[in-house]
Amino acid sequence: MDFVKDPRLIEQGSFEIISRELGERGFGHIEGNIIKRIIHTTADFEYADITQLHPQAIEAGMRALGSGCKIYTDTQMIMSGINKRKLGELGGSIVNMVHEPEAASIASSEGITRSMAAMRMAAGDESIKIFAIGNAPTALFTLKSLIEEGIVRPELVIGVPVGFVGAAESKEEIKKAGVPYIVTRGRKGGSTVAAAIVNALLYSMPEKL
Amino acid sequence: MDFVKDPRLIEQGSFEIISRELGERGFGHIEGNIIKRIIHTTADFEYADITQLHPQAIEAGMRALGSGCKIYTDTQMIMSGINKRKLGELGGSIVNMVHEPEAASIASSEGITRSMAAMRMAAGDESIKIFAIGNAPTALFTLKSLIEEGIVRPELVIGVPVGFVGAAESKEEIKKAGVPYIVTRGRKGGSTVAAAIVNALLYSMPEKL
Repeated sequence: MDFVKDPRLIEQGSFEIISRELGERGFGHIEGNIIKRIIHTTADFEYADITQLHPQAIEAGMRALGSGCKIYTDTQMIMSGINKRKLGELGGSIVNMVHEPEAASIASSEGITRSMAAMRMAAGDESIKIFAIGNAPTALFTLKSLIEEGIVRPELVIGVPVGFVGAAESKEEIKKAGVPYIVTRGRKGGSTVAAAIVNALLYSMPEKL
Repeated sequence: MDFVKDPRLIEQGSFEIISRELGERGFGHIEGNIIKRIIHTTADFEYADITQLHPQAIEAGMRALGSGCKIYTDTQMIMSGINKRKLGELGGSIVNMVHEPEAASIASSEGITRSMAAMRMAAGDESIKIFAIGNAPTALFTLKSLIEEGIVRPELVIGVPVGFVGAAESKEEIKKAGVPYIVTRGRKGGSTVAAAIVNALLYSMPEKL
């Protein structure tokens, strides 16, 4: 069988097709990179319409990544999807507290989700500058409360929970928290989308000298 | 803020909404479970139209899972997304050879993708009964060749690469390989979709006595 075998050619060809089909949409360069990488990972052009970036989102996200920050994620899938080599070169790392026994114990004793419990645990770690939430609306609601209470002050919130109960609402709420955000309006999003956004930011970083 | 916090209620509510919006579509029970779980993980109802199951796919997949088989995956994200507790209860496990040094070495010396190299490595392990391919069309093309050459004989191929170069074609090709398949026609698919399909099959298994 005859098919393209070089991964770089496959990726390059994919982005050419995406750019052509997107047409002229007036995205900024890095905003465009983010949206194209989301479409690359979902094959769903609706993300060009529903992806919303706070005016400071790109600058704040790149500043945080450049400082070697920790990224909070709410699923193992996001962790797996982020380019850890590239992140490590910048001195950054990923944390996921949802699966720690302490989260389960807090969740069970307080009748909340493990995602909410993990978010409260994360509030104690000031080196977490970016929150990437792809699964749990409850995590995003809790994060908004923690920001409003002055307990956490992230540089960037990537808020892209997918789902039918609370996901859309959680994304509208986080936009009111007064911190830079990247969200996908409505129901769509997910772990692959969250990872695509982080990776697009990573690939947009200037090379370190 | 007032929002649903119980994960079981969130999931139950989500499936009720999905079932209502899907309406009467004439899916079989387990086929419906698979399609609803894909929609649950993507919020994309197009999957109801593009998901295609070979007539023996469900029976073959459940038989393989019931026998405690290995599942081949082509990304860490699929591995992360599969319910490993449930799989472990059945005596099953997951393998991912793409990230092994041997795959990189074969890929580099033969000028093929690591996904193709890993697929050839997998051909030697007869306990792999299910192949779940969510990323690389090249893996699916290679798998088809290996099946046609009589080198592997999977019970079920979950073929859902996402993308713009080769993904759609790879899914049409695997349908001709003569083994039970679950595919998503066209460009859409991905790691979350592959994991959702495996999990839907796992949750459809009868409880062990």
